[in-house]
Amino acid sequence: MEKYVYPFGGGKADGDGTMKDVLGGKGAGLAEMTNAGLPVPPGFTIATSACRLYFENGNRLPETIRAESEKALEGLEKLQGQRLGDPETPLLVSVRSGAKFSMPGMMDTILNLGMNDAVVEAIARKTSNPRFAYDSHRRFIQMFGNVVLDIPKEEFEHIFDGQKKKRGARLDTELRTEDLKNVIADYKALIKRKSGKAFPQEPKVQLEMSIEAVFRSWYNPRAATYRRMNKISDDLGTAVNVQTMVFGNMGETSGTGVGFTRNPATGAKEFYGEFLMNAQGEDVVSGVRTPVPITELEKINPQAFAELREITTRLERHYKDVQDFEFTIQEGKLYMLQTRNGKRTGTAAVRIAVDMVHEGLLTPKEALLRVEPEQLDQLLHLVLDESKPLKVIAKGLPASPGAAVGRVVFTANDAVAKGKLDPVILVRGETVPDDIHGMEVAVGILTSRGGMTSHAAVVTRGMGKSCVAGCGEVEVDEKGKVMRVGALTVREGDWISLDGSTGRVILGKANTTEPDPHSGIFAEFMKWADESRTLGVRANADIPRDALKAREFGAQGIGLCRTEHMFFAPDRLPHVQRMIMACKDTPSSDEIKSAVEKEKDPRRIQALRKQLKEVLGYERERRAALSKLLPMQRKDFFGLFKAMDGLPVTIRTLDPPLHEFLPKREELMVEIAVLESKRRKGARLNRLKKLLAVVESLHEFNPMLGLRGCRLGIMYPEITEMQARAIFEAAADAKKQGIEAEPEVMIPLVGDVKELALEKEIVNKTAEEVFKKKGVRVEYLVGTMIELPAAALSAGEIAREAEFFSFGTNDLTQTTFGLSRDDCGKIIASYVKQKIWPADPFAQLDPKRVGRLLRMATKEGREARAGLPKPHEKLKVGICGEHGGDPSSIEVCQDAGLDYVSCSPYRVPIARLAAAQAAVKKSQVKAYTTA
Amino acid sequence: MEKYVYPFGGGKADGDGTMKDVLGGKGAGLAEMTNAGLPVPPGFTIATSACRLYFENGNRLPETIRAESEKALEGLEKLQGQRLGDPETPLLVSVRSGAKFSMPGMMDTILNLGMNDAVVEAIARKTSNPRFAYDSHRRFIQMFGNVVLDIPKEEFEHIFDGQKKKRGARLDTELRTEDLKNVIADYKALIKRKSGKAFPQEPKVQLEMSIEAVFRSWYNPRAATYRRMNKISDDLGTAVNVQTMVFGNMGETSGTGVGFTRNPATGAKEFYGEFLMNAQGEDVVSGVRTPVPITELEKINPQAFAELREITTRLERHYKDVQDFEFTIQEGKLYMLQTRNGKRTGTAAVRIAVDMVHEGLLTPKEALLRVEPEQLDQLLHLVLDESKPLKVIAKGLPASPGAAVGRVVFTANDAVAKGKLDPVILVRGETVPDDIHGMEVAVGILTSRGGMTSHAAVVTRGMGKSCVAGCGEVEVDEKGKVMRVGALTVREGDWISLDGSTGRVILGKANTTEPDPHSGIFAEFMKWADESRTLGVRANADIPRDALKAREFGAQGIGLCRTEHMFFAPDRLPHVQRMIMACKDTPSSDEIKSAVEKEKDPRRIQALRKQLKEVLGYERERRAALSKLLPMQRKDFFGLFKAMDGLPVTIRTLDPPLHEFLPKREELMVEIAVLESKRRKGARLNRLKKLLAVVESLHEFNPMLGLRGCRLGIMYPEITEMQARAIFEAAADAKKQGIEAEPEVMIPLVGDVKELALEKEIVNKTAEEVFKKKGVRVEYLVGTMIELPAAALSAGEIAREAEFFSFGTNDLTQTTFGLSRDDCGKIIASYVKQKIWPADPFAQLDPKRVGRLLRMATKEGREARAGLPKPHEKLKVGICGEHGGDPSSIEVCQDAGLDYVSCSPYRVPIARLAAAQAAVKKSQVKAYTTA
Repeated sequence: MEKYVYPFGGGKADGDGTMKDVLGGKGAGLAEMTNAGLPVPPGFTIATSACRLYFENGNRLPETIRAESEKALEGLEKLQGQRLGDPETPLLVSVRSGAKFSMPGMMDTILNLGMNDAVVEAIARKTSNPRFAYDSHRRFIQMFGNVVLDIPKEEFEHIFDGQKKKRGARLDTELRTEDLKNVIADYKALIKRKSGKAFPQEPKVQLEMSIEAVFRSWYNPRAATYRRMNKISDDLGTAVNVQTMVFGNMGETSGTGVGFTRNPATGAKEFYGEFLMNAQGEDVVSGVRTPVPITELEKINPQAFAELREITTRLERHYKDVQDFEFTIQEGKLYMLQTRNGKRTGTAAVRIAVDMVHEGLLTPKEALLRVEPEQLDQLLHLVLDESKPLKVIAKGLPASPGAAVGRVVFTANDAVAKGKLDPVILVRGETVPDDIHGMEVAVGILTSRGGMTSHAAVVTRGMGKSCVAGCGEVEVDEKGKVMRVGALTVREGDWISLDGSTGRVILGKANTTEPDPHSGIFAEFMKWADESRTLGVRANADIPRDALKAREFGAQGIGLCRTEHMFFAPDRLPHVQRMIMACKDTPSSDEIKSAVEKEKDPRRIQALRKQLKEVLGYERERRAALSKLLPMQRKDFFGLFKAMDGLPVTIRTLDPPLHEFLPKREELMVEIAVLESKRRKGARLNRLKKLLAVVESLHEFNPMLGLRGCRLGIMYPEITEMQARAIFEAAADAKKQGIEAEPEVMIPLVGDVKELALEKEIVNKTAEEVFKKKGVRVEYLVGTMIELPAAALSAGEIAREAEFFSFGTNDLTQTTFGLSRDDCGKIIASYVKQKIWPADPFAQLDPKRVGRLLRMATKEGREARAGLPKPHEKLKVGICGEHGGDPSSIEVCQDAGLDYVSCSPYRVPIARLAAAQAAVKKSQVKAYTTA
Repeated sequence: MEKYVYPFGGGKADGDGTMKDVLGGKGAGLAEMTNAGLPVPPGFTIATSACRLYFENGNRLPETIRAESEKALEGLEKLQGQRLGDPETPLLVSVRSGAKFSMPGMMDTILNLGMNDAVVEAIARKTSNPRFAYDSHRRFIQMFGNVVLDIPKEEFEHIFDGQKKKRGARLDTELRTEDLKNVIADYKALIKRKSGKAFPQEPKVQLEMSIEAVFRSWYNPRAATYRRMNKISDDLGTAVNVQTMVFGNMGETSGTGVGFTRNPATGAKEFYGEFLMNAQGEDVVSGVRTPVPITELEKINPQAFAELREITTRLERHYKDVQDFEFTIQEGKLYMLQTRNGKRTGTAAVRIAVDMVHEGLLTPKEALLRVEPEQLDQLLHLVLDESKPLKVIAKGLPASPGAAVGRVVFTANDAVAKGKLDPVILVRGETVPDDIHGMEVAVGILTSRGGMTSHAAVVTRGMGKSCVAGCGEVEVDEKGKVMRVGALTVREGDWISLDGSTGRVILGKANTTEPDPHSGIFAEFMKWADESRTLGVRANADIPRDALKAREFGAQGIGLCRTEHMFFAPDRLPHVQRMIMACKDTPSSDEIKSAVEKEKDPRRIQALRKQLKEVLGYERERRAALSKLLPMQRKDFFGLFKAMDGLPVTIRTLDPPLHEFLPKREELMVEIAVLESKRRKGARLNRLKKLLAVVESLHEFNPMLGLRGCRLGIMYPEITEMQARAIFEAAADAKKQGIEAEPEVMIPLVGDVKELALEKEIVNKTAEEVFKKKGVRVEYLVGTMIELPAAALSAGEIAREAEFFSFGTNDLTQTTFGLSRDDCGKIIASYVKQKIWPADPFAQLDPKRVGRLLRMATKEGREARAGLPKPHEKLKVGICGEHGGDPSSIEVCQDAGLDYVSCSPYRVPIARLAAAQAAVKKSQVKAYTTA
C-alpha cells in the first residue's frame, strides 16, 4: 500500500533529504535534520501524492490519508507527551506547504493550530504570560479565517486596527490582554457571519480543514502564475508539513537565537551569533531589544550551549560548509529550527574555503566551488561599510564593481576642474567617447541610460572604476547641473556614494573599507583555480597600463585591443577627422580608370578624367592623414607587445562607424540654423556647413548595422593597411629588442568568408613588406570576430580563412535578439521583471540562442579546419565580449569547448575562478554520466 | 592511349555536347552542332587535359599532342580542299580558348591565322578586295604580336593611330590598302625589335605558337582573378578550338546575317531576322549599312534560304526553343556560326511557351520553365519603347517595375499640386511615411538613397507603381528643387522617364507601350503554373483596394497586413500621437500598488500614491486615445475581410518604433534653438519643448533594434488589446453579414516564446470577450513572425505557442547580416561589385545563412508541434518579407518546405510562376535522384 504520511522526530524520520519528490523541499530537509540527530521539533509530512489524490477525489481528503495522518498525530502526541486540544499538556502545531521546487511565499501557512478557548486559558496560566497566549490565539484565528475560510485579510485587519484606534495605540504591542480578548471576540463574530459557522473549537477539525486548505492553495492565482512563469508543472502538487510549535518566549528558561559556525564577515574560525532569553525570533532581529553575543549563553545555560556547539560543529562537518542556524530554547530544552549554508563576504568565503582544505574537510576542487566568483570583487575593490545604515535613493545596473564616494559633477570638464579638490562622481544621461577625460579623473560614474555593455559600463570596467549604469529612476539635467530622483534633487557638489557591485546609489558620504585580499590565502586559492581550469583567461586592454594590470591579475594574453580607443586622443582626433573628411562615397580610382578605357564618348571621357583626379586626391588625402597616425599606432602597439612580452596580443582593426569621430549631426544643425536665423555669414558658417555635409553623408538610421567593422576596411583599404603596418613594424622593432611579440590580427564584423579573405590579403601583403624592410620575421595569426549570426551560420566556410575565432558576444547578442545595447535599458528591465528572460542577455550569455550559435560555430569551424595540413588544422577559439568575465557565460564557453575567455583586467581573477568551477563541474557531470 | 584532339566537320564530330569537361563549353557546342548536321565551319578541339599536360611539361607542348594536332590539321585540310599557307587554296583558321565554365573575355583569341606575305597577296587577288586582305593580315599580326609575343596592345595602336593621323583619317575604314601595307611593315619592325625575331611566315609555326599562347592565357591575371572570384578551380585548364575561318565579305555571292526562328518581340511564329550581302557580321549591327529583312534572301539565293529555313526549323525542334542564329554565306555556301536559345520579351516568352505546348514540342511543365518569372512584369506594367534611343543618365536599383514618364517634382505637396496638370515623378533623397499623399499621385518615384526594401521601394511595389531607388549618382537638392547627375542639372518641371524594371533613369519624355497581356494565352499559361505549384501565394496588402487587386492577380489570401500603415492617415495621427505622449517610462500601476502594500514609511507611501495617480492618468489617457482608433481600425479590418471573403487574412499587430509617428528630433531641436536665440517665449515654444521631451525619451540610437514589434505590446498591453478587439469585432460583424472572415493574428519581432505567450493571452482573452458580446464565434489563428535569429534558433519552443510562422525575411536579413536596409545602399553596391555577395541579400534571400535559419526553424517548429493533439499538430509556415516575390528566394522557400509565400499584389503572378518552377525543378531533382 502506498505511504502518504512520513513522521519525523525523536532522532529518526521515515524519509530523508533525497526525497524532495515525495516530501517536498521543506519536508525532505526536516527529515534530513532529524536523521542527523538534531533536536528538531517533531512532526509529520503528508506527501505530494496525497495532494494529487485530494484533487482527484473532488477536493476531499481520502479516508486512507485521513487515517494515516491521525496515526501520525497519535505518534507525535506520544513522542511529545502532549495532546492536541488537551489543556493540561496542549500540543500546538504549525501547518505549512512545501513543494518540490521552492515557491517562496506563494502558498499558505497556519501557525499555533490547536488553540481553542480552553487551551488558550491553560497556556496563559501555565506561562504566566496571558498576553502571549491571547496574541497567539488571535493570530491563529486570523490565519485560519483567511486561509481556510477564505475571508479577506483586510476584514481582520480592520477589526484589529479599530481596536488599536480605540485604545489610541500606535504599535501592535501596545494592545493589552483585554484588548486582544475583544479582538478575538470580534474575529469569531466575523467568522460566524461570513462562513455561517462558528470558529471550530475541536483541534482535529482545525487540523483537517487546514491540511485541505494548504492543498487547495496549490491552485491559488499567485502560485499558478508563479508556476507558469517558472515552468513548474501543475501536476506536482504540494506536501503538507505538520510540526510541533516551540516558543522561546515562555519565560526566563526559554530563549532564541541565530548564529554561524564561523565569522561570516572575516572567515575566522570562531563561534559567532547572538541570542535573547524570553524572546521570539523576531525580537532578535528587530532591534527593539539588544541581543547578547552567543558566547554569553555558556554562562546562562551551559548545557544548552555545549549541545549547540556540539550540534553545529557536527552540522558543519556534515554539510562541509559554514552553517547559519536558528535555535530556540523552550523551557530549557534546545530545539534546532533551521540550518543552512551561511552567506558570507568574499573575503570570508575565500578564507573559509582555504581553511577547510587545510582542515581536511574539503578537497581543493570542492573548495573552488564554495566561492562565488563575483565575490572575489570584494577582495579587489573598495567595499561599502554596511554596518551603518545607507540612504539608498535609487538602484541601477551594477555596471562596474566597487564603491565610490564623491561630489556630483555633470560634465567631463567639470570633473577635471572639480576633481582637483575632492573626489568626484560623474553623472551623465549616457557617456560618449568625448567624456573620456572626465571619466579618467572621476572616482565613479552614474548614468541614467544604457545597459551592462553601454560605453560607460565597458570603459569603467576596463579602468576598474565603480559604475552604476542605466539608472532610470535618476533624471539627469546636464545643462541645469542637477539630478532628480522622485521629489529629491541632487545638485552639483553634493556628496553621493555608489555601489557598483549592487547598483545602489546612496545619498551622502558613505564609509568604505579597503579591500583586504589576504594575499597568501588568496594566492593559494587562485593557484588551485589555475590548476583546475582548462580555459585560458585573457584580458581586454587597449593601453600598456591596462595590459600590465591584467598581467598582474593573471591574464595569459590580450584577447581584445580596440584600436579605435586610441583614435580619440586629442592629438590624434584631428588626423582621424581629416581622413574621414576624405572618405567619400565615390567609385575607386581603379574603377574609374577601367571606365575610361571602355568609354568612347570624348566628353564623357573628359568628365571621367576629372572625377578620377578628384578621387585620386581623396585617396592621397586619406593616405596623408593615415601616415600621421601610423607612428602613433606603432608606438601604442609596441607598448602592448612590451607589456605582454611572450604572450599573445589580439588586435582588432578599426571597428566603429566613422561618424563617432565627428561632431554630432543635430548639434551642427542647431548651430547652423541659429547662425542663419541671425543672418550671420562668413568662414565659420561655411566650415560648419561643409562639416555637416560630411556628417550627413555618413549619417545612418542604425549605425550599429551600418558602415563599420571590416566594411570600413573593404571600402577604404588604406585604413587596414596602415593598421597592419603599425602592428608589424611595432612587432619587428620589439623583436629586435629581444621582446617576444605575438600579434593576432582580428578582423571585426565579418559575415562572409570573402570579407575576411580580402582583409587578410592586405594584412599578409603588408606583413611581408614590413618583414622584408625590417629584416626580421614575426610569427602572427589572422583571424576574425564571430559577432554576426551570418558569421556563426557560415563558420565552416570562414574557418578556411581564419586562424582563430573570437566571439564578439556583445554584438552577437544584439543582432541575435535584434536588441540595441545602447537603447535596451527599459526593455531589459521590464523583460527581466516579467521573467521573459532569466537575466539581462548582455550580462549573462543567453545559452539557448546566442549560445547555440557559439556551439555551432565552434564545432563547424573546427571541423572545417581539421582537414587542413599541420599546423593549420587547429582553430583557436575564444570570446572577447563582455560575457568573457561572467561566470554563467564562462560555463557556456566551457561547454562549447572554447580555448579561452577574455574580459576586462579587473575581472581576470573572477574569470579564472569561474573557469575553474566550470571545468570542475563539467568533470563531475562526466564522472557521473560515465559511472 | 588518351585522346587529346577531337576533330569536327563534314557532318560528324568526335565529341558531343555533353563533353564540356573534356572539350570546354565552346568545343562541346561546336561538336553538338556538327553532329546535328549543321554546316559548321570545320576544325578541331584540343582537350583541356592537353592544357594540364602543357603546364606539367614545363610550358611546352608534348610531342604526342603536337602530332595529334598535325594529324587533325591534315584531316581538316583534306575536308576543306585547302591548305594552311598554300597561296592557291589558302586555309585560314581561328584559334580560341574555351574552358568548362564560361569566362567571357578573360582569355585570348587569334583570328585569320595562316596569313603570310604570300597568302595575303593571293587572297587580295582572288577576292579582288585587297583592302579586305591586308586589313585581315594587319589584324592577325596585331593579335599574334600581343597574345603570343606579349607585346603591349598600345604599341600596335600607336602605330595604327600614327598612320591615321598621317592620312588625316578619322575612322579606321578611311585607311586605304597602301596605308595598311605601311602599317603591316611597321608592325613587323616592332615585332622584330621587341621579340628579337622576325614575324613567323610559316603558318604551322604560327599555329603551334598560338595554341601554346592560348594555354598560357589560362594563367593571365584577369583569368586567375575571375576564377578566384567565381570559385573555378585552377586545375581545370582550357581547351583550344582551331576552326576554319569563313568570310561573308568575299564578294556579291557572300553575305552574313542574324535571325530568330520566331519573333522575339511578340512571340509570333514567323521567320525573323536580317542580312547583308558582301558584308561582315559587324556591318549588320553597326548601322553603317541598312540590313535587309531575311525574307529577301529567298530572292537572292533561294537555295541558301531554303537550307537556312530547314536548318533553323530543325534546330528549334532539336533544342525545343526559339533559336537565335548567326550565319555566313561564303561564295554561295551557307555556314552556321552560332545558334543559341533566343532572348525574348516577356510577352513573347509566354506566347512561345504556350504555342510550343500546342505544337507538341513541350509539355506544360517544360513550358513553365521557359519564362523568366520577372518577365511577366512586362505583361502587367507599362513598358519603355526600346526601338528609339534612350538618353540614360543614371542607373539605380530596379525597386518597383514598370515605366513612368513625367515632370520632376521634389516634394509630396508639389506632386499633389502639379500632378493635376501633368503626370509627375517624385524625386526624393528618400521617402518617409509623410510623403504618402505625394506618392499616391505621382506616376513614378526616384530616390537617391535606400535599398530594395526601403520605404519608397516597399510602398511603390504595393501600389504597382514604377520606382528607381538608391540611385547614388543622382544628387537631390530638395530645397533647391534640382537634381544633379554629374554635370547635368534637372529642374522641377523637366521631363524624365524611369524604367523601374532595370533601374534606368532617362532624360526626357520616352515613348511607352501599353502592356499586352494576351489574356487568353496568359490565363492558359498561369493555369499550368497553378496546377504545378505546391506553394500557396498570398499578398501583402493593408487596404481593401490592394487586397482586391491581389485577389484579381490570383492571391490566395493576405500574408501580411501592416496595421501601422493605417495609423498614418491624417484623421488618425493625432490620436496616435496622443497615445504616444502618454507612453511614459514608468512602472505599471500594478507594480506601484504592490509597492504601496509592502512599504511602511508613510512619507514614501504618500509619494507612491502620488505616482500611482499619475500612472493611472497615463493609462487612462492611452486608453482614451486608443478608443478613438478602435472604430477606425475595425472598419479597416472589416473592409479587408470583405475583400478576401473566404480567404485567410494575416494581420500583424503594431510594429514600428513609436517615434516614427512624431516629428523629427533634429527638426524640433533646430526650431527650438532658433526661437530661443531670438529670445522668443510663449505657448509655441513651450509646446515644442514638451514635444521634444517626449521625442527625446523615445529617441534610440538604433531604432531598428529598439522598442518596437511585440515589445510595444508587452510594455503597453492596451495597444494589443485594442487591435485584437478591432480585429474580432470586424470579423464578428462580417460573419453576421454572411462574409467568411479568417483572421490570423500575427505577433511581430518575437525572440522568446514567453513574449508570444503574453501577447497571445491578451488576444485570446479579447477574442472571448468580443465573441461573448457579439454572440458569434469566428475561427482564428494566433502566430508569430520569425524575423530575429533568436526566434529561428528557438523555433521549437516558440512553435508550442504559435499556430503559424511567417518569416519576416527583411528583418531577418538585417539582423543576420547586421546590416540596416535603410543605410545599406553603398555597402551592398560595393559588395555585389566586388563579388563578396552574389546579389543584394534584401532582393534575393541569402540561402546560406538566412536560408539556413529558415530551414532550421521550419523543421524544428514542425517537429515540436507534431506531438500536439489534432488539429494543433500542424504548423502553417509562410514568408511575408519582400523576398516572397523573388523567384530565387521562392526556390529556397520550396526547398525548406514552406506552405506559402506572400508578396506585393503586383508580384503575385510572378510568385505563382516562380513557385511552379520551383516545384517542377524539385520534382525533376527528385526523379533524378530516385532514378
